[in-house]
Amino acid sequence: MDMYQKIIEAADAVTPKLILQRRDFHKYAEPGWQEMRTSSIIARQLTELGYEVLVGEQVCLRSARMGVPAEAVLENAYQRALEQGADEEFVKVTRGGMTGVIGILRCGEGPTVALRFDIDALGVYESQDEDHFPAAEGFASVNSGVMHACGHDGHAVSGLGVAQVLMQIKEQLHGTVKLIFQPSEEGVRGAKSIVEKGHLDDVDFFLGAHTTAEDDEGSDVTPGSTGALATGKYDVVFTGRAAHAGGEPHLGRNALQAAAAAVMSLYGIPRHGAGASRINVGKLVAGSGRNVIADEAFMELEVRGVSTEINDYMCRHAMQILEHTAAMYECTVEVREMGGAEAMFCTPELMERVAKISAEKLGLKVSENLLEDMGGSEDVSYMTNRVQKNGGQATFIRVRSPQKAGAHNRKYDFDESYIPKSIKIFCATVYDLMK
Amino acid sequence: MDMYQKIIEAADAVTPKLILQRRDFHKYAEPGWQEMRTSSIIARQLTELGYEVLVGEQVCLRSARMGVPAEAVLENAYQRALEQGADEEFVKVTRGGMTGVIGILRCGEGPTVALRFDIDALGVYESQDEDHFPAAEGFASVNSGVMHACGHDGHAVSGLGVAQVLMQIKEQLHGTVKLIFQPSEEGVRGAKSIVEKGHLDDVDFFLGAHTTAEDDEGSDVTPGSTGALATGKYDVVFTGRAAHAGGEPHLGRNALQAAAAAVMSLYGIPRHGAGASRINVGKLVAGSGRNVIADEAFMELEVRGVSTEINDYMCRHAMQILEHTAAMYECTVEVREMGGAEAMFCTPELMERVAKISAEKLGLKVSENLLEDMGGSEDVSYMTNRVQKNGGQATFIRVRSPQKAGAHNRKYDFDESYIPKSIKIFCATVYDLMK
Amino acid sequence: MDMYQKIIEAADAVTPKLILQRRDFHKYAEPGWQEMRTSSIIARQLTELGYEVLVGEQVCLRSARMGVPAEAVLENAYQRALEQGADEEFVKVTRGGMTGVIGILRCGEGPTVALRFDIDALGVYESQDEDHFPAAEGFASVNSGVMHACGHDGHAVSGLGVAQVLMQIKEQLHGTVKLIFQPSEEGVRGAKSIVEKGHLDDVDFFLGAHTTAEDDEGSDVTPGSTGALATGKYDVVFTGRAAHAGGEPHLGRNALQAAAAAVMSLYGIPRHGAGASRINVGKLVAGSGRNVIADEAFMELEVRGVSTEINDYMCRHAMQILEHTAAMYECTVEVREMGGAEAMFCTPELMERVAKISAEKLGLKVSENLLEDMGGSEDVSYMTNRVQKNGGQATFIRVRSPQKAGAHNRKYDFDESYIPKSIKIFCATVYDLMK
Amino acid sequence: MDMYQKIIEAADAVTPKLILQRRDFHKYAEPGWQEMRTSSIIARQLTELGYEVLVGEQVCLRSARMGVPAEAVLENAYQRALEQGADEEFVKVTRGGMTGVIGILRCGEGPTVALRFDIDALGVYESQDEDHFPAAEGFASVNSGVMHACGHDGHAVSGLGVAQVLMQIKEQLHGTVKLIFQPSEEGVRGAKSIVEKGHLDDVDFFLGAHTTAEDDEGSDVTPGSTGALATGKYDVVFTGRAAHAGGEPHLGRNALQAAAAAVMSLYGIPRHGAGASRINVGKLVAGSGRNVIADEAFMELEVRGVSTEINDYMCRHAMQILEHTAAMYECTVEVREMGGAEAMFCTPELMERVAKISAEKLGLKVSENLLEDMGGSEDVSYMTNRVQKNGGQATFIRVRSPQKAGAHNRKYDFDESYIPKSIKIFCATVYDLMK
Repeated sequence: MDMYQKIIEAADAVTPKLILQRRDFHKYAEPGWQEMRTSSIIARQLTELGYEVLVGEQVCLRSARMGVPAEAVLENAYQRALEQGADEEFVKVTRGGMTGVIGILRCGEGPTVALRFDIDALGVYESQDEDHFPAAEGFASVNSGVMHACGHDGHAVSGLGVAQVLMQIKEQLHGTVKLIFQPSEEGVRGAKSIVEKGHLDDVDFFLGAHTTAEDDEGSDVTPGSTGALATGKYDVVFTGRAAHAGGEPHLGRNALQAAAAAVMSLYGIPRHGAGASRINVGKLVAGSGRNVIADEAFMELEVRGVSTEINDYMCRHAMQILEHTAAMYECTVEVREMGGAEAMFCTPELMERVAKISAEKLGLKVSENLLEDMGGSEDVSYMTNRVQKNGGQATFIRVRSPQKAGAHNRKYDFDESYIPKSIKIFCATVYDLMK
Repeated sequence: MDMYQKIIEAADAVTPKLILQRRDFHKYAEPGWQEMRTSSIIARQLTELGYEVLVGEQVCLRSARMGVPAEAVLENAYQRALEQGADEEFVKVTRGGMTGVIGILRCGEGPTVALRFDIDALGVYESQDEDHFPAAEGFASVNSGVMHACGHDGHAVSGLGVAQVLMQIKEQLHGTVKLIFQPSEEGVRGAKSIVEKGHLDDVDFFLGAHTTAEDDEGSDVTPGSTGALATGKYDVVFTGRAAHAGGEPHLGRNALQAAAAAVMSLYGIPRHGAGASRINVGKLVAGSGRNVIADEAFMELEVRGVSTEINDYMCRHAMQILEHTAAMYECTVEVREMGGAEAMFCTPELMERVAKISAEKLGLKVSENLLEDMGGSEDVSYMTNRVQKNGGQATFIRVRSPQKAGAHNRKYDFDESYIPKSIKIFCATVYDLMK
Repeated sequence: MDMYQKIIEAADAVTPKLILQRRDFHKYAEPGWQEMRTSSIIARQLTELGYEVLVGEQVCLRSARMGVPAEAVLENAYQRALEQGADEEFVKVTRGGMTGVIGILRCGEGPTVALRFDIDALGVYESQDEDHFPAAEGFASVNSGVMHACGHDGHAVSGLGVAQVLMQIKEQLHGTVKLIFQPSEEGVRGAKSIVEKGHLDDVDFFLGAHTTAEDDEGSDVTPGSTGALATGKYDVVFTGRAAHAGGEPHLGRNALQAAAAAVMSLYGIPRHGAGASRINVGKLVAGSGRNVIADEAFMELEVRGVSTEINDYMCRHAMQILEHTAAMYECTVEVREMGGAEAMFCTPELMERVAKISAEKLGLKVSENLLEDMGGSEDVSYMTNRVQKNGGQATFIRVRSPQKAGAHNRKYDFDESYIPKSIKIFCATVYDLMK
Repeated sequence: MDMYQKIIEAADAVTPKLILQRRDFHKYAEPGWQEMRTSSIIARQLTELGYEVLVGEQVCLRSARMGVPAEAVLENAYQRALEQGADEEFVKVTRGGMTGVIGILRCGEGPTVALRFDIDALGVYESQDEDHFPAAEGFASVNSGVMHACGHDGHAVSGLGVAQVLMQIKEQLHGTVKLIFQPSEEGVRGAKSIVEKGHLDDVDFFLGAHTTAEDDEGSDVTPGSTGALATGKYDVVFTGRAAHAGGEPHLGRNALQAAAAAVMSLYGIPRHGAGASRINVGKLVAGSGRNVIADEAFMELEVRGVSTEINDYMCRHAMQILEHTAAMYECTVEVREMGGAEAMFCTPELMERVAKISAEKLGLKVSENLLEDMGGSEDVSYMTNRVQKNGGQATFIRVRSPQKAGAHNRKYDFDESYIPKSIKIFCATVYDLMK
């Protein structure tokens, strides 16, 4: 039998159980660095399938994780994972936020191919309306304020399906497969720590994928992505000195005023002549009471650029502004990096290969335009850039299926046909690369 | 017997029970517009003493109350008052925040003399340390986050003591006495609504008093106050439109940016050539998330002026700035008045009268300087100004006693000797005015 | 003889006298709306050639001229034009800034083809160094502070050369030719007033050209231009009220502070998600003395956008900011439009036609890339857009020749080989369109 | 004869020639650091009277002079002084702006008494109307744009009159007299450099005087001054880097934007709780052209405070803001001190002494209020403070006479009766102190 046909059949065969697993992940949604139950289940399944499995400290470089929640939050998440049926053995290593799993399949000589699946949920209150499929079917999130509203539950089980199918065809593969189940994509906080750990350094081909809505042409797949802006996410704290605003205003060091001055200058960073840049102060919380000079101000900031250079330009100016507005008002300022992504450029050869396989071997309809504009940021860019820097090829595929509402919406719902479709594309491409 | 001597003895006699009552008020501290238990107990006692008693809608003009909490907060306060032993009859009329009590004693022809006692507590977490007297004695506040940290528990029982003593000497009085137990002085929110109800319109002499720390000379009383700044307190809400900061920043209407621009211009309102002015944005909360253009910003603002004119000047400029920064960023803005006070100038004749009586009749030591600088704002100013406007006399007395910590501090504690001392000064002055 | 060959020979024949005329224009350089001598000479020559000639009020719509200098400046320019040998008859109609000339050649039925030549100089002090060709040859500008530093002297004589050549081949042409000698391109102030006069409404084909530096490939011509940003130029005056900064700061209405607030918000206009935008406050002059609240502020502002829509977006926000910062500080504000250009998109068919003719008929080397990025603004865009809006075709050609220094530099000098080369391209294309 | 009577008669006797001299000074008005002709004439007269005379480098400490004009301006002033009849010998030492004169009269043992007379004119265009006395009488300023519009011409000749009278009574004096003719009081630029030179270090009594308008009571003299604000005057230059605003805005370092940010923060320096403060940016000139990122911004700044401490507070904050706004925009900033004055508090004993002598010995009417509010700044404060710091006494007298228009007005004109009146007060007080 034709191997591609075998892949198609295998993918369809594993799908029913994966759909159940997807609903389980959806119901017990876990946000970034708290995917403890999720990671433990993935690790258990990969182990049972016969994969070499990396967990805990082996996955992410601890010091390169960004935007890690407070200890108490992580501990609560750990206890909840235990209560909600985490795998008791594997969950232990995730304590303190060391989530994520890597499964490795070694098949002798040949190229190293890495696939990435992100697994975290978002801070969204899921709709409980009857017209919301997960609610109607009883698998809406039971973790209040946490929801898989971006399809990462689908991505995760797609990875598990890929693991099963590849194991079935391993005799036909030559080289090494790495299945990377990445934590904390939301807020672009996790990928960098996996890259810094070195897992992408020996990779020749890299594939990632994301659910995406249908297009007018009714296509199934877009083999590459464009428009991913490089970005930096920062939390900023200005600290000043309180004073009574009526009696001794001159003794205060006004952190709120410093923050306001910073906001005015941040939005005024000159546009870059070479391409798009962005800046946003999305949140500002300052001061303790009406008649007190504010002694603290907290700010959530992000910059973006169409290239990593432009993003760096924005970042450099933002840091200067924060430093000097603080000093101007005799405050101190602390900046914490909470997330980041680079600009991303998919490798044309690999995109075309995916297109060709999808069309010719899988009978899928490929978008006329090989690139879909993301219009946002994705930290998969750290992985694609590392692979390309070493001479490898990388792309980030968009797999299309009907959606009920846009990503990050409380009624977001992707069609589960995404699951077998993405498994087929991943496995067929891997086979093509390693046969 | 000399009437002044009689007043002294009567004041000392009622003090032990007042101290118990003060500790009761302290233990069940209630913040502004929530003094429901406190008001009900005061109304009950005044009634039993034989006073004509005004409560509920009769005290404050409902629409002139400023900074009233949300309905749910008021309802919680009401339930708590019931649980903590409020007078069941009188508490009913306070429901919804109609707190405050006025006791009237009519003694035929003669001048009308009004005394004011403020009764609300503050939003402060009281110290539970052993070296804090209320904690050691077991009467620290049981209402978490609410504390009598400004002595209004003392003021309230001082008013009850005055009520008792005056009733004992009423045969010697000619005219009318009004004992005004004012709610919501903190945040300068309550006095105006009593004035607007008309209670001060027929008053010939007005007296208020406040606890104050000892001075170097060891004096007992300062018969007047100066330096009370006129003030206006405002809550401001900017409303814009959210948009994704990466993809469509031009579709946003940035309420956070509008608020920051407003802050920069508010602090830059030109100083007034005729005297001191103040401005403060004590709190700013804006935005919902890092990558979203902020669609809302909330701001707590206050202005002050050494005269009502200068305060009005500051207010006018602040309102212009808020209106136009909002419009500049295509946002709307809503401003709510949350409190206010006027500048205050005590009547010299009345100050001297209080000084003379205190020294000659009560044997108290009077400060060399007849005026104490308040360096803040007091809404008793609405009352003094209304009385003076009609040709009456008014003063705001400072009664001195040792203090453990400054006002608004969580270890604030005034010496209870304040209670009889203030009763004597009030009653002796009333007698002198009405004999 | 082949008509293209005839055009080539005719162009070469007229060049020597045109070079002399170019040096004459260069020596007596005139800035925007002051091209009185220049216009008068052009009008004289076109008249002598037999063209129907439009001058004065017939060329630009008076009220649509932007950035017109003060009356006194225009009158000085007029007197200088007279002194420097203007044509005495034609110069009269230019008095007051009604410069520019249109020459019309009617050749029966056929399409209307318009060519545009800009004729104004810049506010630059020309180098007098020996290594600067115009200085060495004695034709550097004698009008101090005014210099043809952008090649418009070459453009102007190129137009005169086209006029001569077309007259020689008019028997072979069918339709109407309009030669538009446009004033005040610098600062993008003049084109709109010609368009508003209606001169482009009946045009089927439109061609403009600009000198440009050599490229690496050694090409002669780029048949189209891209990257012309739409732009708006504004002069802004804030008017407030002076007051003594020590004694009565509250009586001032601070125009300088208003302008500073405007600057902060102008640079902070949100980036547009759909493409590049620009904003600049290039000049700010405010206040009269250190101890006086400034009662006036003058600002030179410009906005740009990669599309007319984005430019309009920037303009709308800028106007809002100016209006509301003025109101915020109780100032008034007046905004004058000083210049403007639209985004420009050359018609592919016409670009390809120019390319084909240049290569095949004139033996010129055409750039591989048919479009040159301008990276600035050109008010020829008003003309191209008007023509295209009516269904016509338009392009803006770049004719390459060696340059000594970049445009707007005081040592700018284009090679005079530009003159015959551009005449050939214009005339051959006109012939091709009208034959 | 009574010595006071002798002083009165001597003062009256010298007045007619002083009036001529005053009109001469008025006609040839010289602004700060350019009082070359004026200084040379004063030095000549003091020398002829027999005074020990200090000129040039002996008067002001060169490096402590503030707000000195450019060399070319000073040289022009020097040439003009020569042309307008300066004393040829004494004018030489003033070249380069070393103006001012000190005359010393040593009379053996006794206190040192210093008197100060300021001699500079203002940058005002004098009225040429017939109703303006100096114009009608032919002594309006012939130096266009320079006018004695603050009475310093009167002060100067008053000093010359004092010199004559004291010389007549020197046998009755014991101690030392210093007559200080100070340059550059306008802009508060000169006094500090005389103090820094040490001339006030040994002074026991110090007197200055200023013309002032009549009051309602018709008094002749107010023996002291109050309300002089401490002040600092600064010129600020921000330097950035130019760039094309359309093509490469990111390469600019925007000095105009830095200056605007500074303005917003400067006006927002928190009010001082202890008393009045002031800030003003009276002038701002930035940028070179609309489409260029501004590479330079010039700012004229002043701060004031009701005490030297508050002025220092304002200055410290202003310097921080300038430094950090510059750094924020990657600009450099240079701040030059252009003037300064301290707060001033006249010595009560000396004020009362002047009052007593004026009333009892000179028959003058003394204001009921011993202090006149200046409502501005005066650098005589450096002198009074230095004397008081060493235990001496100092006052700044207001001598009243009718005025036609307020100071600094182009029709300002004081009544010349000021001259003998001020001479009498100075001389009688000196005699009283040294007899």
